[in-house]
Amino acid sequence: MTTIAYLGPAGTYSEMAALQYLQLNYPDLTRDIPTLRPYQTIPQAINAAEHGHVDIAVVPVENSIQGGVTMTLDSLWQSESLQIQQAIVLPIAHALITRAPNLEDIKAVYSHPQSLAQCQQWLDRYLPNVQQIATDSNTDRLHSVAEDATVAAIASQHAAELYKLPVLKFPINDQPDNCTRFLVLGRTTPTTKGTHSSLAFSLKRNMPGALVKPLLVFADRQINLSRIESRPTKRSLGEYIFFLDIDAAIEDPNFSEALVELQNVTENLKILGSYSIA
Amino acid sequence: MTTIAYLGPAGTYSEMAALQYLQLNYPDLTRDIPTLRPYQTIPQAINAAEHGHVDIAVVPVENSIQGGVTMTLDSLWQSESLQIQQAIVLPIAHALITRAPNLEDIKAVYSHPQSLAQCQQWLDRYLPNVQQIATDSNTDRLHSVAEDATVAAIASQHAAELYKLPVLKFPINDQPDNCTRFLVLGRTTPTTKGTHSSLAFSLKRNMPGALVKPLLVFADRQINLSRIESRPTKRSLGEYIFFLDIDAAIEDPNFSEALVELQNVTENLKILGSYSIA
Repeated sequence: MTTIAYLGPAGTYSEMAALQYLQLNYPDLTRDIPTLRPYQTIPQAINAAEHGHVDIAVVPVENSIQGGVTMTLDSLWQSESLQIQQAIVLPIAHALITRAPNLEDIKAVYSHPQSLAQCQQWLDRYLPNVQQIATDSNTDRLHSVAEDATVAAIASQHAAELYKLPVLKFPINDQPDNCTRFLVLGRTTPTTKGTHSSLAFSLKRNMPGALVKPLLVFADRQINLSRIESRPTKRSLGEYIFFLDIDAAIEDPNFSEALVELQNVTENLKILGSYSIA
Repeated sequence: MTTIAYLGPAGTYSEMAALQYLQLNYPDLTRDIPTLRPYQTIPQAINAAEHGHVDIAVVPVENSIQGGVTMTLDSLWQSESLQIQQAIVLPIAHALITRAPNLEDIKAVYSHPQSLAQCQQWLDRYLPNVQQIATDSNTDRLHSVAEDATVAAIASQHAAELYKLPVLKFPINDQPDNCTRFLVLGRTTPTTKGTHSSLAFSLKRNMPGALVKPLLVFADRQINLSRIESRPTKRSLGEYIFFLDIDAAIEDPNFSEALVELQNVTENLKILGSYSIA
């Protein structure tokens, strides 16, 4: 039976993305239902898939407001066996979950740092003197919310329903167009034909100016990049790994040729997968 | 009298960077000693400088392991008046500060998410089942460490001395070459001649492939980039602001010409400052 790792506990946006993956890929849910398995951190979920403890990991990779999820990018670069199977984009709408009858009764707000950041203006305006406490996931402290009417958590309405807790305010995210892209990672090559590809590379000359050559490889072939993100190599300041998303499948001959040329102008080149976006 | 905002409370690496700034710029510390003023978050410290509540803010912008400090980059892009006055690079060496006599006695570790991430392998190995609690700064919870011998904090040896607390293990950062670059931000143009410049821009065509043109402007003129980083525009997935550091002063005619040309291939272009690195 297929097992799927996600950033838990139950009720996180990662779980919602994992459930969406199930709906898309297992339409007949009366048999062979995959098991969802929560992990405490993103690297733990990715490592579980890398080492075969689960078949698949569903992890966030980029939010439209907060940008790249660095733990996911760094784990992907280090992974030796994982390929991106699919990408899933979820709209994010945050709820203030609390048993407090009014905002004035709230003393502390718990949530994942990304969620706190996505509601920063709202918090500054409506809960200016309330302690904001960062947690491993949005739903980590919903048990505290259940026990203590002076604390609140920021999570989805789905999480509030799951834990049978009241929503005091919704939505509270600063930008209405808030969405997060999740990656489905596994050790196999996807069976369905991809439409997008991701790759990452370091550069031979340790200077970002050398990035112009890899970018020209794509520009010369009219291949569109939908994303570029830099991460430190962790060797020293000023050395980077670049993550690129490309609007082309790996089977596309134009793209295959670009990859050959790319080998010559990069140090380490890693194909992270060719996949479809849901 | 000059006032300097930093991410507090006392004992943070930001305070160490602010002290270094003082040593460099106020060699005669017997008179006109600037006042250091701690702020609870990075945006609060930057806003204080932006709105004239302080003269200068000293904030982290990039760590060699964890990458860009997104709150600093986003605040810089939004700022209307701040210019980078100076950059300061500090080596970072983390200590495990606790009254616990042995590692086995520790139940929880407090620190800033960046510091926890910089010690992740050490924590996974030596404190695998201990709760890791993210705080606004490294020194936020040193009072808890003073009161409770079952908790620990990750901060500098300087912080341990300041709060008169024992260091159980040092250094505990995973990479020995760990350093952080800080920016000194103010509303004036620096009086000393710069050696480096920083700028940021968004692109007219909302696609990262369009980044090749701005990069070519520099490559064609043999101007070296020492850093490139992307941040979301917060409008929608796939639209970015790019932050570039350049090894040239703004007075350099070669660079001034590049800036004129850059106007034509970018949407919004913002010069963040021309400054020296200490």
